[in-house]
Amino acid sequence: MTTSTKTQAKSTDVLISVDAMGGDAGPAAVVAGMARSAQKNPNIAFILHGPTDVLRPLVTRRKTLMNRVEFQDAQDVVLMQDRPAHVLRNGKGTSMWSAIDAVREGRATVAVSCGNTGALMALSMIGLKKLKGINRPALAILFPSRNPQGFNVMLDAGADVRADAQDLLQYAIMGSSYARNGLLLRRPRIGLLNVGTEQHKGHAELKEANELIRSFADKADFDFVGFVEGGDIPGDTCDVIVTDGFTGNVAIKTGEGTATLIGDLLQDAFRYTPLSRLASLLSLTSLRRLQKRIDPRRVNGGVFLGLAGTVVKSHGSSDATGVSAAVKLAFQLAQSGFSERLSARVAAVAEYASDSET
Amino acid sequence: MTTSTKTQAKSTDVLISVDAMGGDAGPAAVVAGMARSAQKNPNIAFILHGPTDVLRPLVTRRKTLMNRVEFQDAQDVVLMQDRPAHVLRNGKGTSMWSAIDAVREGRATVAVSCGNTGALMALSMIGLKKLKGINRPALAILFPSRNPQGFNVMLDAGADVRADAQDLLQYAIMGSSYARNGLLLRRPRIGLLNVGTEQHKGHAELKEANELIRSFADKADFDFVGFVEGGDIPGDTCDVIVTDGFTGNVAIKTGEGTATLIGDLLQDAFRYTPLSRLASLLSLTSLRRLQKRIDPRRVNGGVFLGLAGTVVKSHGSSDATGVSAAVKLAFQLAQSGFSERLSARVAAVAEYASDSET
Repeated sequence: MTTSTKTQAKSTDVLISVDAMGGDAGPAAVVAGMARSAQKNPNIAFILHGPTDVLRPLVTRRKTLMNRVEFQDAQDVVLMQDRPAHVLRNGKGTSMWSAIDAVREGRATVAVSCGNTGALMALSMIGLKKLKGINRPALAILFPSRNPQGFNVMLDAGADVRADAQDLLQYAIMGSSYARNGLLLRRPRIGLLNVGTEQHKGHAELKEANELIRSFADKADFDFVGFVEGGDIPGDTCDVIVTDGFTGNVAIKTGEGTATLIGDLLQDAFRYTPLSRLASLLSLTSLRRLQKRIDPRRVNGGVFLGLAGTVVKSHGSSDATGVSAAVKLAFQLAQSGFSERLSARVAAVAEYASDSET
Repeated sequence: MTTSTKTQAKSTDVLISVDAMGGDAGPAAVVAGMARSAQKNPNIAFILHGPTDVLRPLVTRRKTLMNRVEFQDAQDVVLMQDRPAHVLRNGKGTSMWSAIDAVREGRATVAVSCGNTGALMALSMIGLKKLKGINRPALAILFPSRNPQGFNVMLDAGADVRADAQDLLQYAIMGSSYARNGLLLRRPRIGLLNVGTEQHKGHAELKEANELIRSFADKADFDFVGFVEGGDIPGDTCDVIVTDGFTGNVAIKTGEGTATLIGDLLQDAFRYTPLSRLASLLSLTSLRRLQKRIDPRRVNGGVFLGLAGTVVKSHGSSDATGVSAAVKLAFQLAQSGFSERLSARVAAVAEYASDSET
């Protein structure tokens, strides 16, 4: 059983539904991230899900959160090691379920969680249902890139290990809609991930998807650049990279792992000699600027697309900086009316597709 | 028709068969890389394949190469954009074919080429034949990692977009043999790439491969750590990462692209202010040390495994540093008798497998 405590949030506020539990850094990091967002953004307010007895003292300590947090008590927690199937059977009392339920009921349009990705996906599917015309919802992530907007959208990053040509078309449509609303790109460039850019390379289903996505580019208002390679995920040949959830998950984790390794080696390098230690002091600002640019915590807001409602997945290891970035993304998407726009776009394309068949 | 010009190479020399053509940087970069290797290693000699009229002046200019290069004239070149099927029909007069043919004839045990990967794989398959017991040969690459040896082996990096459970087992066996001979690891740790480390995740064929590889670990003399994720490619949980050529190719290119992006951003960061420019001068040594560690040109020797003979694929964009690294790897593998050891290992496992079936 969950009970809700109302606050005096202003009617102009955008309400974000936040799961306080399940992240590696615990609820204190989540509340700290909310406070950081609230300080920068006067129009944001929260519904906070978790054990109220634990959460209220954390919130009370933050002046910027005064009168901007509605508590929704939920005593259970989804653990990182819980299997999705287990959570589906036993998850109704958890903070994660409660956070999604607030979106289902229309009390918020976007939910944020740092918890177990598989469980979040499973509960979101049950709670929010798939959009009409969508077969497999997808997890879209932002990856640092050479493009002017600073990062690219990549989907699916691991919601489903499989995707056929129709699914990849839907990912292209959802990804371009997300890039339009989240990155403010008027006409996003879409690329289809393959092992080479030549027409004859890759699996048969990719060749089919290549034709299919090309034929919908104008209708769905994006530019299709055709096949792209792994190097284009951090590159500037396109803004949205479309792939299946298996390949996408491996690619993003390889990229993140490489970035972290280089960051650590860089720190080691500067520790090596007195001269390099001095250099690192002199270059602190430059290095911090770089770190900010490639910090996975700042671009860690994965978004589940294809559901009747938007769910932002923050990294499990998110600290206050990471949570604040995910909350900011949730706010942008809620304020732009993204959920409604995506739903309309998918419906229009589905209608067009069935028209062309008859 | 090709003609060969003998040199006075010493009988103790290890002969490496080098394709001078087909790389983006042209034959001058290849000869420069050979010269660099020859300077460091008195026991290396070369058979150089390509248009002798072009190559001889390049070699004559390098004193360290005197009497260490045998020319094998081949006037045709495999271009980067040539399709493998086209090369198979028309490739007999090319420098690439000639380089592989020298291995087939036993004049060298290892060939090196910077050319078109697909064509190199196709010609190698035709020229060298598959080892008994191998269904799909694989391209194994080295990727910078947190392990003491500085990098991990990953295969297949793109020889074949498909791999079933049996293929993945063969990759595990070949990868561990390569790690033993190329990285001098007595008992390499093998990981199977997946979207999570839990037993229930991923495709059905991966679960099958997981069981199969585990059951052969002792026989093939490696440790099997089970499922690993993209972050383990640059990590230290295992030494050899096994996956299909589609996933492997995307992963390696994403990792490389990320490393290159960070390198460029780092340079930009140090250019930003006078203070940071000063810092970059002070930290030049540290940065060079780091660059050396993660420079893809230094670890760019991909190796085709599973053929009766060893073919090292250097990056298409290889300059002298890259070619020299590939030649060094070729020398190590030739000197350790890797081709024979791998062949014996694969045969032993195939025999064991057919014994267990009866």
